[in-house]
Amino acid sequence: MGGGDVTTLATVPAGASAHAYVLAKEPLRLAGLDAFRRVFEVLGTPQLRWALHASDGDDVTPGTRVLDVEGDARALLTGERTALNLLQRLSGIATLTARWARRLEGTGARLIDTRKTTPGLRVLEKYAVRVGGGANHRTGLFDGVLIKENHIRAAGGIPRAVRAARAAAPHTLRVEVEVTNFEELDQAIEAGADAVLLDNMSIEELREAVRRAKGRAILEASGGVTEDRLRAIAETGVDLISAGALTHSARAVDLSFLFE
Amino acid sequence: MGGGDVTTLATVPAGASAHAYVLAKEPLRLAGLDAFRRVFEVLGTPQLRWALHASDGDDVTPGTRVLDVEGDARALLTGERTALNLLQRLSGIATLTARWARRLEGTGARLIDTRKTTPGLRVLEKYAVRVGGGANHRTGLFDGVLIKENHIRAAGGIPRAVRAARAAAPHTLRVEVEVTNFEELDQAIEAGADAVLLDNMSIEELREAVRRAKGRAILEASGGVTEDRLRAIAETGVDLISAGALTHSARAVDLSFLFE
Amino acid sequence: MGGGDVTTLATVPAGASAHAYVLAKEPLRLAGLDAFRRVFEVLGTPQLRWALHASDGDDVTPGTRVLDVEGDARALLTGERTALNLLQRLSGIATLTARWARRLEGTGARLIDTRKTTPGLRVLEKYAVRVGGGANHRTGLFDGVLIKENHIRAAGGIPRAVRAARAAAPHTLRVEVEVTNFEELDQAIEAGADAVLLDNMSIEELREAVRRAKGRAILEASGGVTEDRLRAIAETGVDLISAGALTHSARAVDLSFLFE
Amino acid sequence: MGGGDVTTLATVPAGASAHAYVLAKEPLRLAGLDAFRRVFEVLGTPQLRWALHASDGDDVTPGTRVLDVEGDARALLTGERTALNLLQRLSGIATLTARWARRLEGTGARLIDTRKTTPGLRVLEKYAVRVGGGANHRTGLFDGVLIKENHIRAAGGIPRAVRAARAAAPHTLRVEVEVTNFEELDQAIEAGADAVLLDNMSIEELREAVRRAKGRAILEASGGVTEDRLRAIAETGVDLISAGALTHSARAVDLSFLFE
Amino acid sequence: MGGGDVTTLATVPAGASAHAYVLAKEPLRLAGLDAFRRVFEVLGTPQLRWALHASDGDDVTPGTRVLDVEGDARALLTGERTALNLLQRLSGIATLTARWARRLEGTGARLIDTRKTTPGLRVLEKYAVRVGGGANHRTGLFDGVLIKENHIRAAGGIPRAVRAARAAAPHTLRVEVEVTNFEELDQAIEAGADAVLLDNMSIEELREAVRRAKGRAILEASGGVTEDRLRAIAETGVDLISAGALTHSARAVDLSFLFE
Amino acid sequence: MGGGDVTTLATVPAGASAHAYVLAKEPLRLAGLDAFRRVFEVLGTPQLRWALHASDGDDVTPGTRVLDVEGDARALLTGERTALNLLQRLSGIATLTARWARRLEGTGARLIDTRKTTPGLRVLEKYAVRVGGGANHRTGLFDGVLIKENHIRAAGGIPRAVRAARAAAPHTLRVEVEVTNFEELDQAIEAGADAVLLDNMSIEELREAVRRAKGRAILEASGGVTEDRLRAIAETGVDLISAGALTHSARAVDLSFLFE
Repeated sequence: MGGGDVTTLATVPAGASAHAYVLAKEPLRLAGLDAFRRVFEVLGTPQLRWALHASDGDDVTPGTRVLDVEGDARALLTGERTALNLLQRLSGIATLTARWARRLEGTGARLIDTRKTTPGLRVLEKYAVRVGGGANHRTGLFDGVLIKENHIRAAGGIPRAVRAARAAAPHTLRVEVEVTNFEELDQAIEAGADAVLLDNMSIEELREAVRRAKGRAILEASGGVTEDRLRAIAETGVDLISAGALTHSARAVDLSFLFE
Repeated sequence: MGGGDVTTLATVPAGASAHAYVLAKEPLRLAGLDAFRRVFEVLGTPQLRWALHASDGDDVTPGTRVLDVEGDARALLTGERTALNLLQRLSGIATLTARWARRLEGTGARLIDTRKTTPGLRVLEKYAVRVGGGANHRTGLFDGVLIKENHIRAAGGIPRAVRAARAAAPHTLRVEVEVTNFEELDQAIEAGADAVLLDNMSIEELREAVRRAKGRAILEASGGVTEDRLRAIAETGVDLISAGALTHSARAVDLSFLFE
Repeated sequence: MGGGDVTTLATVPAGASAHAYVLAKEPLRLAGLDAFRRVFEVLGTPQLRWALHASDGDDVTPGTRVLDVEGDARALLTGERTALNLLQRLSGIATLTARWARRLEGTGARLIDTRKTTPGLRVLEKYAVRVGGGANHRTGLFDGVLIKENHIRAAGGIPRAVRAARAAAPHTLRVEVEVTNFEELDQAIEAGADAVLLDNMSIEELREAVRRAKGRAILEASGGVTEDRLRAIAETGVDLISAGALTHSARAVDLSFLFE
Repeated sequence: MGGGDVTTLATVPAGASAHAYVLAKEPLRLAGLDAFRRVFEVLGTPQLRWALHASDGDDVTPGTRVLDVEGDARALLTGERTALNLLQRLSGIATLTARWARRLEGTGARLIDTRKTTPGLRVLEKYAVRVGGGANHRTGLFDGVLIKENHIRAAGGIPRAVRAARAAAPHTLRVEVEVTNFEELDQAIEAGADAVLLDNMSIEELREAVRRAKGRAILEASGGVTEDRLRAIAETGVDLISAGALTHSARAVDLSFLFE
Repeated sequence: MGGGDVTTLATVPAGASAHAYVLAKEPLRLAGLDAFRRVFEVLGTPQLRWALHASDGDDVTPGTRVLDVEGDARALLTGERTALNLLQRLSGIATLTARWARRLEGTGARLIDTRKTTPGLRVLEKYAVRVGGGANHRTGLFDGVLIKENHIRAAGGIPRAVRAARAAAPHTLRVEVEVTNFEELDQAIEAGADAVLLDNMSIEELREAVRRAKGRAILEASGGVTEDRLRAIAETGVDLISAGALTHSARAVDLSFLFE
Repeated sequence: MGGGDVTTLATVPAGASAHAYVLAKEPLRLAGLDAFRRVFEVLGTPQLRWALHASDGDDVTPGTRVLDVEGDARALLTGERTALNLLQRLSGIATLTARWARRLEGTGARLIDTRKTTPGLRVLEKYAVRVGGGANHRTGLFDGVLIKENHIRAAGGIPRAVRAARAAAPHTLRVEVEVTNFEELDQAIEAGADAVLLDNMSIEELREAVRRAKGRAILEASGGVTEDRLRAIAETGVDLISAGALTHSARAVDLSFLFE
């Protein structure tokens, strides 16, 4: 934090106390109340008194008073922007995910995120996706095998890459292969892939992929996933729909941090 | 990095070598070549051989081969996504900033960023803004005094807040006050503020603010800054136009990392 | 490193140079040559000159000169014990693993490690297991789902626990359940577990477990795994045999670091 | 903390309790009570009970009991020296600064510190200067532009250096130029410098500099600032007097930490 | 902790509460209760309620309930294995040390550990040795001078090495020399060594070494120290017996962490 | 480093190269050349070319050119002040220590430092004392037993404190007791203390202490050690003279870092 918040140190008397609250300014799904409070702890804030009026996962209406907090004015002013940005961003992800997830109701498809998250905020953003009713893809390079084009080339073809992964990766990990056409899909399934990522396929192609796979592998549709296409993709019969948009394109929702 | 990149460890033989290159897929301004290379160093990569064909700040056309790299295949595959994301993002910021900055040519106004940057990437993103021809607002809470509504309330009015800041902040920092109307603007200038942030004002209001200020303070237009309004804002005579969009809404540009 | 190596600083003149080498004193499989060198780098050692005469994975005989190193005498003396301990320990794990793995030749079973590794050395020890011809179980709590008794109780039974895991864990992870009897085994398989850990079962019980599973899940024998029982366990038809002994009970092998 | 405080662990029984207090042994201005307590927290001390009888900024007389503390004897003995050194040092800075600041009363000049602080204690020492009634120069290289001789040479003269700084530094920072003669002073002011550091000038020269500047820039006298010359410097009309002595030459004041 | 404990997050409902306890399954000396609790704190566990029924240093019988803990079920499940491993390991060291120390009763010899500890656990393991009634050798390279063969060679003989150490090391450190025969022993004592480490000597040799030293130096027997030889070594009259086995070969004792 | 060196970034063109050198401006003993270079490495400086014309421990005359360096101008300007401060400070300590040490020539007394060092620079400052011909007291609380008044009280007297320390501290550490009068001195020696710190005694008292000790313990004179009294203290026959002044009062010597 460099030399501290010079504006606050200069304009707010030491020891002054303040009362502030968070207000929802639009309909939204809350996520990140813990992170909001944690910001002030990290700043080494003297004891604040909190009253929470809602919880992560609640869908709140405009005008809802989400929480009240009382305590050291300097601490509240120094942390407010960082804390609020976090709450707006995480609630934005949860709100977007919830809206998209509703579109899939009644289909068997599950909405999942990707690794397109903000560096340093990955764990929190993936949590927000879960709060929104989505599920998580792997978190990093260590908790899932995802064989892409360059791995395939290096290994000498899909069958070899799948066999190599099966032999060398922990048995606790599934083996997934990214494919762009039906030939690759067939090879992946025959080689024993547990899951197949269907990259940038049309609705028609996805339908055909589901037919060919015959339930022998988990199918993940990825690429070109927009809110408009979501329902149609789900109805092709794929198991998973992954969308980087959930984290990298979610709009921060409108919440205010107001001082009384 | 947890347990490492299990896919690469499993599918790519130890010691294998690869040759890859970066290709621009759309017109863009490059930014982040150093950061791109640094990703592989942080991974503890064995020596890679680099050939750079362009530099940060270059405007390149689609099809331009930006760099070639040769070396350990595992290292290249493990780092590729992180490195490329960074280059796409930073070049995206530079490209957007350059386009917006061109709109201001011939006016006296200068385009600046805000603190709405990605946590952990602040320094790099602000660098990308400069590569794009913009300038930087303060980096944190420590390198600039920006008195906002809540500070004003805590201090007991604009004059008191400005005086307190002048007395307590290092003389190396300017004192800027955020205002929303003309009365506050007048107070700030009379209290001796070095700069005034005009928050969310219309073109007409900005013009009037410039008239009232009579050059006694640096004027920063902020809020509601879109590409469409940019020229009109600049023509009101303000000194600075700050836009969070430069960093938080810049689209990642299309660059590929391809293996031969 | 506190106040440094006072003995070496006191007894060895600054700038003195030395030549040392590593000698195998018993038959062993080498693992950890990179880690050995890294110790001296971490100490900030001035440039050392290395000559490696063998590689990780080599089976060497007593009397084999493994490497020579020349350079600053203080640096070599300060790092020698830490570096040698590491090489002895990692080669010990590789040597033990290699001996056990040979016992499984011709069966379909694969030897794997567990999380019973030394804190801080987990990644290196798991690497040594691979050098020895074994494979790795999950590295941490994040790269595999392993449902144990207490999770089952908290979830309200095996079927619920498996369903909960399937719904909430990334699809890139398999779901494994730890069981102690046939009833639990049946429940786990019927609930759709991908793998089952058979805890502390006799050879006879393991054989029965394989019969019941009928290939519907990966079977892992765990607990009571000794070198004597290894072959018999493998011949029951289980897929995996996990042994904490590979890492926590491997004897450090005899290697010397000698100065000329 | 290496292997801990072996003396205390060896001579003081685990669980023993003690009562200690801090006593002022000379007239002084207190600064650093929070830091004093923080030392014991960092040591992971079990709960101590504190009673503070004075506050930072108080001028206390010899014999004043500043605080009482009760709790784990080992913790109190392990932390006492570090904590007391800090309190003596910070109070020493505040005491010296207060004495010097009193000499400036009635003049318009303000006493400020420099970057000649103890590495790692910069924030605390600058705080102690404020407690003593001084103000702070920039904290680091990031919160102020100070153009020195070598920058001027690299930029190609004072006018170019000032223009470059104006164009590239955040508008929230003032631009200050260090000069050693009147020609440079004139150049700096004409180039639009916000502030000028007058390096090592005599009283007579400072007076002339004030005359020439005519209020167009903030003037900082620096170099050769001793307690004896302080008043005379201030009466030349400069705005700021910076003195490294405030932090690097302040004598630690006499405070004792006594056990009952 | 990578992506967290996916199994627990998936199978245990947020907010669920649990009650667990630790049970001794064999006779043992307890060590590590603080470390056990600290594991859960490090995980950022919400407040747990602890009831301790025994203390470090207690010899407990099988069936003893050592502690009860109540609180957040997810936290208890995530930390249980790490916490229990630590308690089992540290109590194992204390138990082994206590048994060995009893063998020395009535002799003047003191049992001490070595630097053969687990990286990262050194401080805790050395604490467990003390709980077991042993004492500690130096913790690192910084809190004791131990001149070994390679130092002797570099210095040009034992007398020179001892003199160099006396001149250069802090006077707060004793100077100890490692010797393998009587000639070296004599040289070390004559050179003024405070202590001599007798490396790998037979009982007969140790007895002779004691005769020769005539109380002029502290004698430490080291190497080949087994439980069987312990009493005989002590009866030779040496002052210290150091055994790496106390830390690197102590068996983890049997303690369970059970949920009610 | 916060937002970097804004002045240098603004005024010095990227890629510009510079040539600088270090010049001694007064007679001094050099110490800290390595630390000087390390500052630029820590800044991540691109490769600099160094030419060293003198070494640590050299006594140089005014006008001596100590080193030349060539390379990136921004890097040299950003690091110059920190690097030079360090070199001035460390050489100042070595210079002062060398002057004081010369006063002791021909006596048996040895000049040692204390723990009154700058936080974060302890290791470097103690190194500078050695370069000046002094020796080091313990570095921290972990590499020496020093029993002070409060430990004595907690243990119940000097004999008990010494026995407790002997029993519990590693045998590699000596036991030293701080005393203020002859009664305490006698007690400490009879209790078997290896060393005694004579606190704030007059020359006469020190002489008497030497008589009483009869060589049975190392005697350290401490407190009230000034350059004037140094020789007289040494001639009392004490073994060690410790002076906090060596580190906390050494004047930074005059060295310049000049650009060509």
